[in-house]
Amino acid sequence: ADVKKIAVIAGDGIGPEVVGEALKVLKKTEELFGYQFETEHGLFGGIAIDEKGTPLPQETLEICQKADAVLLGAVGGPKWDNNSKELRPETGLLGIRKALGLFSNIRPATVFDCLKEASTLKPEVLDGTDLIVVRELTGGIYFGEKFRREGANGEEAVDTCVYNVTEVERIVRQAFEIAGTRRKKLASVDKANVLETSRLWREVVNRIAPEYPDVELEHVLVDNCAMQLLRRPASFDVIVTENMFGDILSDEAAMLTGSIGMLSSASLGEGSFGLYEPVHGSAPDIAGQGISNPIATILSVALMFRLSFGYHEAAQVIEDAVKNVLDAGHRTGDIAVDKSKAIGTTAMGDLIVAAM
Amino acid sequence: ADVKKIAVIAGDGIGPEVVGEALKVLKKTEELFGYQFETEHGLFGGIAIDEKGTPLPQETLEICQKADAVLLGAVGGPKWDNNSKELRPETGLLGIRKALGLFSNIRPATVFDCLKEASTLKPEVLDGTDLIVVRELTGGIYFGEKFRREGANGEEAVDTCVYNVTEVERIVRQAFEIAGTRRKKLASVDKANVLETSRLWREVVNRIAPEYPDVELEHVLVDNCAMQLLRRPASFDVIVTENMFGDILSDEAAMLTGSIGMLSSASLGEGSFGLYEPVHGSAPDIAGQGISNPIATILSVALMFRLSFGYHEAAQVIEDAVKNVLDAGHRTGDIAVDKSKAIGTTAMGDLIVAAM
Ligand SMILES: CC(C)[C@H](C(=O)O)[C@@H](O)C(=O)O
Ligand SMILES: CC(C)[C@H](C(=O)O)[C@@H](O)C(=O)O
Repeated sequence: ADVKKIAVIAGDGIGPEVVGEALKVLKKTEELFGYQFETEHGLFGGIAIDEKGTPLPQETLEICQKADAVLLGAVGGPKWDNNSKELRPETGLLGIRKALGLFSNIRPATVFDCLKEASTLKPEVLDGTDLIVVRELTGGIYFGEKFRREGANGEEAVDTCVYNVTEVERIVRQAFEIAGTRRKKLASVDKANVLETSRLWREVVNRIAPEYPDVELEHVLVDNCAMQLLRRPASFDVIVTENMFGDILSDEAAMLTGSIGMLSSASLGEGSFGLYEPVHGSAPDIAGQGISNPIATILSVALMFRLSFGYHEAAQVIEDAVKNVLDAGHRTGDIAVDKSKAIGTTAMGDLIVAAM
Repeated sequence: ADVKKIAVIAGDGIGPEVVGEALKVLKKTEELFGYQFETEHGLFGGIAIDEKGTPLPQETLEICQKADAVLLGAVGGPKWDNNSKELRPETGLLGIRKALGLFSNIRPATVFDCLKEASTLKPEVLDGTDLIVVRELTGGIYFGEKFRREGANGEEAVDTCVYNVTEVERIVRQAFEIAGTRRKKLASVDKANVLETSRLWREVVNRIAPEYPDVELEHVLVDNCAMQLLRRPASFDVIVTENMFGDILSDEAAMLTGSIGMLSSASLGEGSFGLYEPVHGSAPDIAGQGISNPIATILSVALMFRLSFGYHEAAQVIEDAVKNVLDAGHRTGDIAVDKSKAIGTTAMGDLIVAAM
């Protein structure tokens, strides 16, 4: 049979707890569908700094490189915040994206109906909101040259934002493809009235657009997009943008759904390989208490099934199980209205496994 | 008597109509308070491209340089969108900021109680929201070197983000000062976990902070800020950030108030000189119909009075007049719930003048 290798990177904070529940769900799909998974664990982030002296140890990278997909919990915490750059969890995150060629970050901003009231937006504004932010992940100002120098007015710092045609083409094509499978609307976000990289970006988008005649394209300036996400979130289908703008807009989009504790994301390269992780962070304040919400990580498994393995039926079973458990009123503390009735991480995981 | 010179730049689209009403208000303050204003008009933006072949004619710049303050309507429109860079209205905007040394953009995001329902946020989330975004306006990626070159993977575009210590110091100090006159909370927004310019920014903020011991400082990463603005807008007082982040966050903040048609902004340099303009754009779709909302531009006059002239009493009279007219139920089309009862630009201006 077809054995899928999954690299498991639990990471820091609540990472290990939520990944633990996701692995139970994974196991359950072996029973239900006869799949075979081989998991290998790797150290990454703060814990890797502590134990190996680097956020991304070579052996962890190799585990990922040999795998068909990576499941990541979360990394980081105050303990490492004041470390020098090379010894910070974020540096590992940027390093793994680059090393694995994960040029595309897919962030669905889905509204869970039963959590709608958790949003700060009016429910009627959220009606029909179901969008995906496709963020370029290995280029732009994140990876351009950075340095300090003495200038005419004292010390200065420099960051460089670079994009080449090839980098823009591959992410834009992917976004058009995704839009084609959905409501067929693509918003390309840039700052073409100011930035040269944005003008290149827009040229490439306009050149590729005729290949996707059934997808309706709009160009939106990044400042305007930050506003329109608030004003008319439901009107967006797929948003494609460069690395820095995508960082900001995908978080804004996630927050407006009210479901940020529930959202999963995929980082993809060429081919079917992908890294899957919850959108939320490592939440060091509640780590180890057994109260964190494992749903985003469990849904990351479903996303992995869909995008890397083509296991659509099993993905649906996981997603339906989550929905049923929520509909039955079960909540972890972060999403509970009545906190006294909140259940723990393990209980939530068990309920979802049982509902599958 | 002290004659104040005001450069008036009506600009494009609805610019001339809304500026016209603001000038009526200005005139009324001469009557009421014995002020003397000398206004001189300059061409700027699209209309200057059409009539003078450049968005920022030298004579307009000189009118501004001789003035004590500038009142700007709005610039731009689809007519000029596909022009080459030198012939675009935005280029004039960037040029005038640089030429006049306007390094600071002050954008209050105020919730008008009577317009609260216009926000897409829940009213209870907006309760108490009253924040100011202080955006650095003449540095960063907006003004760094930009170019195309042939790279290993084909054509590439480059933008450079540069900040020196002096540039950061002056804007951060201003933000601390402003926070000191308000609720004494400053959020400095950066992306210090990725950008070198942000690390410099944060260093400068931390070095200056002890000079303002009564102001509570927090550092917020830009992606997190985009979320927190949605989750807890009322918890912010003053937000200070670099040019590009400020562009995005100030628009997000403005939109969440639901009052975007009502917001004014100031761009300041050293000393008391400033440029004042509504936050909204030139709205070419409704230009010339006499239906635009002049309130943001009228409130820009009040902001000019406060920040450039120290005419606080007159500013208050203008602001109260606006409030009274709104409380009496008068609305232009953009903010009217019942559009059939909407009044026009001139009628709104007249009502405000009468209420002063
Ligand atoms: C931790 C940080 C470097 C990272 C980013 O900015 O890409 C994070 O915000 C994210 O979005 O995954
Ligand atoms: C028109 C554009 C260049 C400008 C900017 O980005 O600064 C505008 O968005 C603004 O905020 O005043």
